[in-house]
Amino acid sequence: MPDPASLQRVAILGVGLVGGSVALAAKKRLGVEVAGFDPDPAIGARAAELGVIDRSADGVADAVAGAEVIFCAAPVAVLPGLVSEALEHSGPDAVISDVGSTKRELVGGLDGEDARRRFIGGHPLAGAESAGVENSRAELFEGARWYLTPTDGTDDILYHRLQRLVSEIGARPQAIDPETHDLLMATVSHLPHVLANALVGQAAQTLAERSERLPEVGPSFRDTTRVAGANPAIWNDIFASNADAVADSIDEVIARLTEASRLIRERDREGVEAWHQSAREDRRLLLEGDASGGVLHQLQIGVENKPGTVAEIALALGRESVNIEDMALFPSGEARSGGVTLWIAGREEAERAAGIVQGLGHTVSVAAGGG
Amino acid sequence: MPDPASLQRVAILGVGLVGGSVALAAKKRLGVEVAGFDPDPAIGARAAELGVIDRSADGVADAVAGAEVIFCAAPVAVLPGLVSEALEHSGPDAVISDVGSTKRELVGGLDGEDARRRFIGGHPLAGAESAGVENSRAELFEGARWYLTPTDGTDDILYHRLQRLVSEIGARPQAIDPETHDLLMATVSHLPHVLANALVGQAAQTLAERSERLPEVGPSFRDTTRVAGANPAIWNDIFASNADAVADSIDEVIARLTEASRLIRERDREGVEAWHQSAREDRRLLLEGDASGGVLHQLQIGVENKPGTVAEIALALGRESVNIEDMALFPSGEARSGGVTLWIAGREEAERAAGIVQGLGHTVSVAAGGG
Repeated sequence: MPDPASLQRVAILGVGLVGGSVALAAKKRLGVEVAGFDPDPAIGARAAELGVIDRSADGVADAVAGAEVIFCAAPVAVLPGLVSEALEHSGPDAVISDVGSTKRELVGGLDGEDARRRFIGGHPLAGAESAGVENSRAELFEGARWYLTPTDGTDDILYHRLQRLVSEIGARPQAIDPETHDLLMATVSHLPHVLANALVGQAAQTLAERSERLPEVGPSFRDTTRVAGANPAIWNDIFASNADAVADSIDEVIARLTEASRLIRERDREGVEAWHQSAREDRRLLLEGDASGGVLHQLQIGVENKPGTVAEIALALGRESVNIEDMALFPSGEARSGGVTLWIAGREEAERAAGIVQGLGHTVSVAAGGG
Repeated sequence: MPDPASLQRVAILGVGLVGGSVALAAKKRLGVEVAGFDPDPAIGARAAELGVIDRSADGVADAVAGAEVIFCAAPVAVLPGLVSEALEHSGPDAVISDVGSTKRELVGGLDGEDARRRFIGGHPLAGAESAGVENSRAELFEGARWYLTPTDGTDDILYHRLQRLVSEIGARPQAIDPETHDLLMATVSHLPHVLANALVGQAAQTLAERSERLPEVGPSFRDTTRVAGANPAIWNDIFASNADAVADSIDEVIARLTEASRLIRERDREGVEAWHQSAREDRRLLLEGDASGGVLHQLQIGVENKPGTVAEIALALGRESVNIEDMALFPSGEARSGGVTLWIAGREEAERAAGIVQGLGHTVSVAAGGG
């Protein structure tokens, strides 16, 4: 069973900005050989020429041959087919992940035990203004949250390998279930785009009806509409692949707006004040409450070595927003029982994590110490 | 009848950031004497000490004595009472204006012919991060749009005086009817705040229910929620004073969101694409379409000197988004017939303005030339 430290081959399917940056980071930080395949041969050739990948493969089968970790970095709409192809052509111990913005449809659509064992959805919260392999950089994921969606069918060793790789290329992996991921993204990322689209359309119509120009109203309108109509190719895919969660989020915001409209129209001054004040408080908690960091602490966890235990722990911690900075399995995955070590930043956070893991029935000890 | 060039006294009722900046600009650009009154005597004294006003008056009556132009620069909620008081104590040739963010309630509530003749609503689109008289500066209105709401009861001479003063302190006056003003502000300024409040509330609830932290999702969420819960004292007044227009705007955006939700939930890919594309187009037109400027042109307009003519012209141009850079009346307002000269930036814009004024039945000629 290969240790992550001994990873030798990574495959990247789709060599754009994100795929290229994973490739560069893996080469630079892990010293692995990276094969890449892009459906556009010119892009594959260009990526090899730039040194982003070590070799440009002829196809998916060629790219994944011998790879221990495979990233599908293609548009959301083509991921299901690409993941199937990668599963089909790769070895039984290769872990496959992706970098798409939505997860429920992809993970929910996995067919068969092998697919559920080896495919783990992923979503790095990193991007850049300029797309394309030319803009790839090894530092793209430095400090970025990287969601992973293990399930109860996920192989522990493969999850461990993927989590380590993600962590070693500088990102901060966090386990999450696919449904929560998509609901979260619908609310904090997709819904702002929908609101921007609605607002800009309404302003355009109101101004046209009154033959007025946009007043110079300060930053609120510009800020709120900055993403209106952004990147249609990407966004049409996102709306399609996260349709239910986005539509649910819209319906929920409609309910909130209906209530706001009522309070305002009825001149319910107290109600309006309470509503506005709670928005103020919510914003403060949301945007000022995400400080993290602190000294790394080790959680030594004793576990029955049954399948899915690591995923279960990672998910439980993810649900409570504990960030796992690093992870190790002892001894190897084949033993009947063993241990997991997790590294968590900050003493308090580590103690909280220990409580959560104890709640799952495992023994835990906490100690300060680097990963 | 005093010429604006010979203005001698301006009164400012409410000496905060905006009132103080009007005072400073009027002193510096027009060389007038500025009396100020603030309900908080310490603020009045401080304003005088800082040289923002020439003297701190004991009350409204004292401040407006002998003033040719009076600005009410108080919170929206207290403006109706303050304007009444100013009307009561000022001379029959004093023009009174305000700087509040909403106009329909204030202008619609004016009682009597004298009030309608002498009060003209105003709203400069200028502000600053830091409130308070200490942050006043003469340049605050440089290049800023300044809405004015003359009506058919407005005295031409008084409108002219106010428009000139606003223009001379560096702003760009634009006539607008109060209802359009409030609808416009509801859409492009107040609605973004409502959406921000709704979004931040929804995100807070979703994250709490799922025990998640706010993901680092790039700027869209931060941009859209930046104004959530902003400055409660000001915003509660705005929601109250523009209640119907804001509630109407919310209801309209709800209709748009309902349609978007339907398209997305039904996986109507073509419909979603068309909706997203039109938002893209609307944003481009709105935010890239407001370039202005060009060489100043004079419009010489012959008018029957009957009351309300200047307001009628200003409103007609305002409705078509023509910006009047400057204005002069010839000969004086007492003559039976005479002329109005308007200065408009850009030849094309001036020709367009000429067409609009001709449409009102006046004779017009256009020539290049500074104001």
